[in-house]
Amino acid sequence: MIATTPHDIQRQIDTFGKRPSSGLHGKDFLLTWDKTREELEAILSIALILKAFRTSNISPRLWDSGLAVSQFRDNSTRTRFSFASACNLLGLTVADLDEGKSQIAHGETVRETANMISFMAEVIGIRDDMYIGKGHTYMLNVAEAVEQGFHDGVLEQRPTIVNLQCDIDHPTQSMADLLHLVTELGGIENLRGRKVAMSWAYSPSYGKPLSVPQGVIGLFTRFGMQVSLAYPEGYSLMPDVVAQARKFAASSGGSFHISSSMEEAFDGADVVYPKSWAPFAVMEERTKIVETGDAKALSELEKRCLANNANFKSWQCTESLMARTNDALYLHCLPADITGVSCAEGEVSAEVFDRFRTRLYRQAGYKPYVIAAMILASRISDPAARLSTILDRAESRTR
Amino acid sequence: MIATTPHDIQRQIDTFGKRPSSGLHGKDFLLTWDKTREELEAILSIALILKAFRTSNISPRLWDSGLAVSQFRDNSTRTRFSFASACNLLGLTVADLDEGKSQIAHGETVRETANMISFMAEVIGIRDDMYIGKGHTYMLNVAEAVEQGFHDGVLEQRPTIVNLQCDIDHPTQSMADLLHLVTELGGIENLRGRKVAMSWAYSPSYGKPLSVPQGVIGLFTRFGMQVSLAYPEGYSLMPDVVAQARKFAASSGGSFHISSSMEEAFDGADVVYPKSWAPFAVMEERTKIVETGDAKALSELEKRCLANNANFKSWQCTESLMARTNDALYLHCLPADITGVSCAEGEVSAEVFDRFRTRLYRQAGYKPYVIAAMILASRISDPAARLSTILDRAESRTR
Amino acid sequence: MIATTPHDIQRQIDTFGKRPSSGLHGKDFLLTWDKTREELEAILSIALILKAFRTSNISPRLWDSGLAVSQFRDNSTRTRFSFASACNLLGLTVADLDEGKSQIAHGETVRETANMISFMAEVIGIRDDMYIGKGHTYMLNVAEAVEQGFHDGVLEQRPTIVNLQCDIDHPTQSMADLLHLVTELGGIENLRGRKVAMSWAYSPSYGKPLSVPQGVIGLFTRFGMQVSLAYPEGYSLMPDVVAQARKFAASSGGSFHISSSMEEAFDGADVVYPKSWAPFAVMEERTKIVETGDAKALSELEKRCLANNANFKSWQCTESLMARTNDALYLHCLPADITGVSCAEGEVSAEVFDRFRTRLYRQAGYKPYVIAAMILASRISDPAARLSTILDRAESRTR
Repeated sequence: MIATTPHDIQRQIDTFGKRPSSGLHGKDFLLTWDKTREELEAILSIALILKAFRTSNISPRLWDSGLAVSQFRDNSTRTRFSFASACNLLGLTVADLDEGKSQIAHGETVRETANMISFMAEVIGIRDDMYIGKGHTYMLNVAEAVEQGFHDGVLEQRPTIVNLQCDIDHPTQSMADLLHLVTELGGIENLRGRKVAMSWAYSPSYGKPLSVPQGVIGLFTRFGMQVSLAYPEGYSLMPDVVAQARKFAASSGGSFHISSSMEEAFDGADVVYPKSWAPFAVMEERTKIVETGDAKALSELEKRCLANNANFKSWQCTESLMARTNDALYLHCLPADITGVSCAEGEVSAEVFDRFRTRLYRQAGYKPYVIAAMILASRISDPAARLSTILDRAESRTR
Repeated sequence: MIATTPHDIQRQIDTFGKRPSSGLHGKDFLLTWDKTREELEAILSIALILKAFRTSNISPRLWDSGLAVSQFRDNSTRTRFSFASACNLLGLTVADLDEGKSQIAHGETVRETANMISFMAEVIGIRDDMYIGKGHTYMLNVAEAVEQGFHDGVLEQRPTIVNLQCDIDHPTQSMADLLHLVTELGGIENLRGRKVAMSWAYSPSYGKPLSVPQGVIGLFTRFGMQVSLAYPEGYSLMPDVVAQARKFAASSGGSFHISSSMEEAFDGADVVYPKSWAPFAVMEERTKIVETGDAKALSELEKRCLANNANFKSWQCTESLMARTNDALYLHCLPADITGVSCAEGEVSAEVFDRFRTRLYRQAGYKPYVIAAMILASRISDPAARLSTILDRAESRTR
Repeated sequence: MIATTPHDIQRQIDTFGKRPSSGLHGKDFLLTWDKTREELEAILSIALILKAFRTSNISPRLWDSGLAVSQFRDNSTRTRFSFASACNLLGLTVADLDEGKSQIAHGETVRETANMISFMAEVIGIRDDMYIGKGHTYMLNVAEAVEQGFHDGVLEQRPTIVNLQCDIDHPTQSMADLLHLVTELGGIENLRGRKVAMSWAYSPSYGKPLSVPQGVIGLFTRFGMQVSLAYPEGYSLMPDVVAQARKFAASSGGSFHISSSMEEAFDGADVVYPKSWAPFAVMEERTKIVETGDAKALSELEKRCLANNANFKSWQCTESLMARTNDALYLHCLPADITGVSCAEGEVSAEVFDRFRTRLYRQAGYKPYVIAAMILASRISDPAARLSTILDRAESRTR
């Protein structure tokens, strides 16, 4: 899929340039379902072209100087480095807004801080995935603040917000997952009709965000896939996202089913994505408790939740389960809870994980390009024209 | 004020280039009162020209590679991002000297550390504002160390120290405030004769530095303004700075008065700057207590100080107070303690703050350019010639 | 030694280009004893040429964009800034892998993390010096992981691992020390026959790594020096490294002796390197205790070790000891424990330290260039040709 000659790269640029994706320009990337199918495919195309540039040692630098702001309200290794890589590739320097170091704790409003960090910012990447009803809302607040700041002449440019994982969606992850699928299956048209099992899996940890499974069902249903969501009783996702996925499946010629059986979901699947998450209801309860600051209640919730998880230890992706599939591709956003490796009993057996390790790493490797593509598509009014210019100028990344 | 054509930018460059400002070259920027009036105006001009470059998408990059060091011994959001933005604009990469991460706690002397971080540093930005008698002294020690290091052939260049707030002055703030005033009033000559009220205001917090009000009275008095400093009994500033302000007012044709009435200061004022600070005597006492490590004494001082503050809750900038002014411009260094928003009772009413919010954000937006101008003026021997070269080469900031 | 004309720089490039050093290309820099003498000398030459470029305001930038990853598992000021400086000089942006911020604590394996941070990484600098048997092993594991990742098509390039101090060696330090010696003695050929005293010295602290003395005896013995290692009973180094040093001394025409007398080591020495370290046996014991998590045992070990140290307070580098030397050059990796300055009794008297302070700072100043040379030699297939190109293009570092 990665073009290796200037001619092939140009052809890829021409192909995506013919389809409408101008709706991306000047817009944030918060939820994949806010974007049209053409726009999502444009992101994939730009990501592949940027990867081809890098392979061909062509620098796709867009800025001589410029700032990108990152704000991680939860831990991150891979997304942090993916964002840093994407920004570096385009010529932006990352400044991290570390709330421990800043005066945010001292009563600053979101509106004020958003403007204060944005005087020279082209993009703001935010991870805020811990609390239901908070993360996406926070991103909207930041977006509104910089929109207003730009309108009022406070900011010289209106920075693009990129969602690096919120409580609802994890678009840089799901789009990297999608690009991996496209590459593995030989083209986006080959996703149609394929069965994907997005299944809950057991983990000895608690409080894992819902945004990965939600991102997957909200995205894969758009390309005619047969999405089978499976989870034990009580582990449902946000109703709105489920409704959205159902609609997408209907309109794309795919399907969307929910079951309470991992086996059923895996039967005949072409793609499996077994992954733990916390129940929506528990996450909501947790958010409320955190707001009250009741440490005891929080600890009791955790205990109760872990005890409940333990009822479903059989929800593990093993080779015998894989045998029910249509020689399925195994996906995971990493890090996985691997039985006997990172924990006694977890989401996946070591055999399955090891068999797919290299492909999982490649899956993760698309994220920097997906993020760079999101930034480019938002900041540049005519991405195809600009990519052609970059190809023509052919500046080496190494000097 | 922001030139938008190459012709206008060139005219601005020519105008400031005619006046003597070569005293800035190779010098630190620690206190505004160490600089001549021409030098301060040169910084303002360079800042506006850099802003014009950015607006015109001209990259004012001065370095292909180079390091800037930041050291924040107190929290910071806006100054941290302003410094990062300024350095990025000029082509410098910021490396943060985080004392938690370094071996400074392990008995390194200031002299040694200053050299160890400076082998490739063009600039060192320092915030050290918590303790009376310490911050400015620390900056002088760092300056002396790198001066010696350069003299001894240890360093290939002598990095410029930029004061990002010390115990005495906050020049990047006061210069940004000044540039905002100049822009709002239509030119620096229009400051002459205008009345500015630099007034203490109530805050439910304790230990706010003196450097903002000191920076303001030490700078605004130089341009013929009628500076009225007001504070409750016991909240006096450093005597040396006050004496300096008095002298400046006399020689610039302005005036300087101290009163203990916010109303009196506001009467007929064209500009108001209501802002809380801790009494000089308390800050001195606190510094001594911190040195002894007596936690109990420190806690008692805080209690005593907060109780004393509470006697002056009426020192709040309200619309009724604003009505006494000559339709004054409200200034604040942010974040402000806003009554009913960030605290129950604070420095300013929400009505007044909201009315000025956009202008306050613009005021803050000058700081990156002021910092960049300070760096440029110190590192470049003939700033006007260099700015002309940048204008002529007209390299785009976007590539 | 630092060439100042293009002609002289070209001559230096030609000289080193004639000798074989292609073994550095594509290889990690973990231990100096893995490298040939020619390769080590090539690093020194490249370092001096890079320094000459900087002095001549020539930008040796190798990348338009690119990432360097740093991972500090122990505190660091000077090495952190040296690595940042080196990367910046070559055009790489440093992204720090801070295990506090990442999900490493959440059970990620080294293999996975190494790949996740390396999608766009040209170099990974690692400090991991606290535990015997761990640091070097960790670096080998990272190297193996990225080697595999590159082989599997996960990574587009195989990043170079640079050892920024492990449990065994500290090559960026010892190579900077060596370059300092070469400069001070007027050429690498002048090291032959010179006596160097690598001596233990008293410090009131505990747990200092062995890698500095080990790095020194493993490197200086390769250039025909007479290396005299001295330490009190019980403070021996790793037997393997000592055996290696003995072999190197024999084959280079130098010598290697161990004594338990600082005086004996200093007698007639041309170079002295008095420096504290923890006994190998204690460090091994500590590593085992840390693994069990027995805080009480750890505290008792520290007490015992400090008490034992205190028996050897006379092991201090004083002027009377220096008088026994052949007007020796005093070396230290810094920070030193200076008697009456950073501690009551320490490694060196203030008189000796002050007399060498400037030279010690210069010694430290070679580290950024040594690191940059290690990166360049590993990433560039024909360093001499590339350096000639850089010299010819003569791009200014300032723009």
